[in-house]
Amino acid sequence: MTELAISRRIRATPFTNRVEAAGVKGYTVYNHMLLPASFGDIEAECAHLKQHVQVWDVAAERQVEIFGPDAEKMVQLMTPRDLSKAKIDQCFYLPLIDERGGMLNDPVATKLAPDRFWISIADSDVLYWAKGLAYGFRFEVEIFEPDVSPLAIQGPKSDELAARVFGDAVRDIRFFRGKWLTFEGTDMFVARSGYSKQGGFEVYVNDTALGEPLWDALFAAGEDLNVRAGGPNLIERIEGGLLSYGNDMTRQNTPYECDLGRFCDPWHSIGCVGRDAMIRMESDGPQRLIRGLRIHGERVPACRTAWAIISDGGEQVGQVTSAVWSPEFDTNVAIAMIDRGYWEPGRTLWVEAPDHMRPAEVTTLPFEKPDV
Amino acid sequence: MTELAISRRIRATPFTNRVEAAGVKGYTVYNHMLLPASFGDIEAECAHLKQHVQVWDVAAERQVEIFGPDAEKMVQLMTPRDLSKAKIDQCFYLPLIDERGGMLNDPVATKLAPDRFWISIADSDVLYWAKGLAYGFRFEVEIFEPDVSPLAIQGPKSDELAARVFGDAVRDIRFFRGKWLTFEGTDMFVARSGYSKQGGFEVYVNDTALGEPLWDALFAAGEDLNVRAGGPNLIERIEGGLLSYGNDMTRQNTPYECDLGRFCDPWHSIGCVGRDAMIRMESDGPQRLIRGLRIHGERVPACRTAWAIISDGGEQVGQVTSAVWSPEFDTNVAIAMIDRGYWEPGRTLWVEAPDHMRPAEVTTLPFEKPDV
Repeated sequence: MTELAISRRIRATPFTNRVEAAGVKGYTVYNHMLLPASFGDIEAECAHLKQHVQVWDVAAERQVEIFGPDAEKMVQLMTPRDLSKAKIDQCFYLPLIDERGGMLNDPVATKLAPDRFWISIADSDVLYWAKGLAYGFRFEVEIFEPDVSPLAIQGPKSDELAARVFGDAVRDIRFFRGKWLTFEGTDMFVARSGYSKQGGFEVYVNDTALGEPLWDALFAAGEDLNVRAGGPNLIERIEGGLLSYGNDMTRQNTPYECDLGRFCDPWHSIGCVGRDAMIRMESDGPQRLIRGLRIHGERVPACRTAWAIISDGGEQVGQVTSAVWSPEFDTNVAIAMIDRGYWEPGRTLWVEAPDHMRPAEVTTLPFEKPDV
Repeated sequence: MTELAISRRIRATPFTNRVEAAGVKGYTVYNHMLLPASFGDIEAECAHLKQHVQVWDVAAERQVEIFGPDAEKMVQLMTPRDLSKAKIDQCFYLPLIDERGGMLNDPVATKLAPDRFWISIADSDVLYWAKGLAYGFRFEVEIFEPDVSPLAIQGPKSDELAARVFGDAVRDIRFFRGKWLTFEGTDMFVARSGYSKQGGFEVYVNDTALGEPLWDALFAAGEDLNVRAGGPNLIERIEGGLLSYGNDMTRQNTPYECDLGRFCDPWHSIGCVGRDAMIRMESDGPQRLIRGLRIHGERVPACRTAWAIISDGGEQVGQVTSAVWSPEFDTNVAIAMIDRGYWEPGRTLWVEAPDHMRPAEVTTLPFEKPDV
């Protein structure tokens, strides 16, 4: 176990004091900011998340605000998803790509007004990419990081907890839609979204000073719901097939390789930087594809670097990028990028784990629930 | 002390195995990569660095390569430093700014050829900024992260150690110049530079496979020089007035506020994005300025967030962004951004440290050596 040396550069969040009081044990660093990764036992946290409700400090999902007459053109420039029919207060999962179709980030963007978007980013400086493009294109937009820090409410009891703090209006929010709801006199955007498959909300806390009061209100209201502090859970997100930018995909990967083709419509995403590359790739099909892997045998060690995947013939045909033991699925679950010709579900491949070579079975994502 | 949750997203370096074998105790995360921060006792490491020689894994200083006919125009676009007289194999400390003159990074760039630069970056995704600008301007350049990982040799015995591995040619390298020298048949760029004031080199290791052999060669050759594994040292860098992007300066600061005016020549940096803003600011002068502070009293706690600086009149007039106890200077040394009217050396101000309010004295940077 290695210590994290913390300095101002690794930014604290509006919730850090509360997270530390709740006994955080491990952080990761995400967008130059602290992101709680564990409170001591990720297996227990996974089980709790599937039964109860958790509050997550995901302030590290920083917002890039795009505001001005060219805002919509600016966002469309960055993504091959067609935004022409986007509605106000609707959220969109957006692959962001470069001129070759390489993934630069995979944020959730919200259209707040015709001339105003928040892009809730994964771990890379989308602000720099957007500012560079905007300057080059002489777009009339302002691009900045507003004082907005998402706080997630996740788990099956999320509706009940959120309703106790924000009112019953939260119950009517549809998936990937949001509403402006009031907390202590301030309107906050509350969306039905989040980095788990257990349901819930993300509250876009738009005033640092309200971070601790909101945290406290949720814990006071949720005591009988067994609310706990948590964070994105490695086990649950792999089981659910939720990709992680920087782990499971990088600039070296295209949206098609990441199985994100359903979010892309290069023919209609007029203006998108990588549109030509995407149109070519759409017809060619990908040369490798994201898949699940059940890695057989005992518990795998922590996946700190990519592990080679080997065919029966002894050739490298892919790599494992995330892996962990799943108590519910009673196997090691993993996310992998696998070459064409080797990715069909059911095939057996070999994984060069740091301890020893292990057989593994290719699966689709998300992992299918085990029969009970 | 909090644990760092490591995943593939927090990238290992070509030297990580050796760093861990050497007993690293704390990492920070820098450019999505592991950067060793401590091997257990930063005061002992500071004293050793000033007397002997250390090898630092600074692979996290990632390179952004700019290659192609428009390379020089591309680099000049990003900085208010005049590059028109730049020579081959010369290194430059480059403030990078946005259209308002806000600092985006403060790399050291090397001109490798008229059409080829490496930008050795601090902690922000300069690659995204450069790619966005290049696309917008339709510049003919390729921009990518090459397989280049700096390894630093720092301390007064650096010349001797580097000469034993790369030959006596290293001794003639002038400050911020470099030479291509051979290690195991591969030419590597070796520059007299580094993030300490104790002298030394940075080797731009341009093949991951040579990382461990070079590390081993340096330790074998340096045994009688008392060579040790180290990393950028918080005490030594504050004493020496070496700024840290993200800690001591952010997008909210201009080069003039960071006292980097001597590196800027907006009148002659034709094409620079923030040139107009810089010309205005050059004549206005900054409204706040980076300074040293001697914070009186016992050892300060770790500086994890900015600490307010208060005037005798009770107003906030600045903030401390880095602070640590210095055994050699027998005081707490700090780097601070202080408002106009309060920054003259010798003035006493008050620092709201997390434990209690402390008096502090404004100084110039670097800190002046104590009388012996």
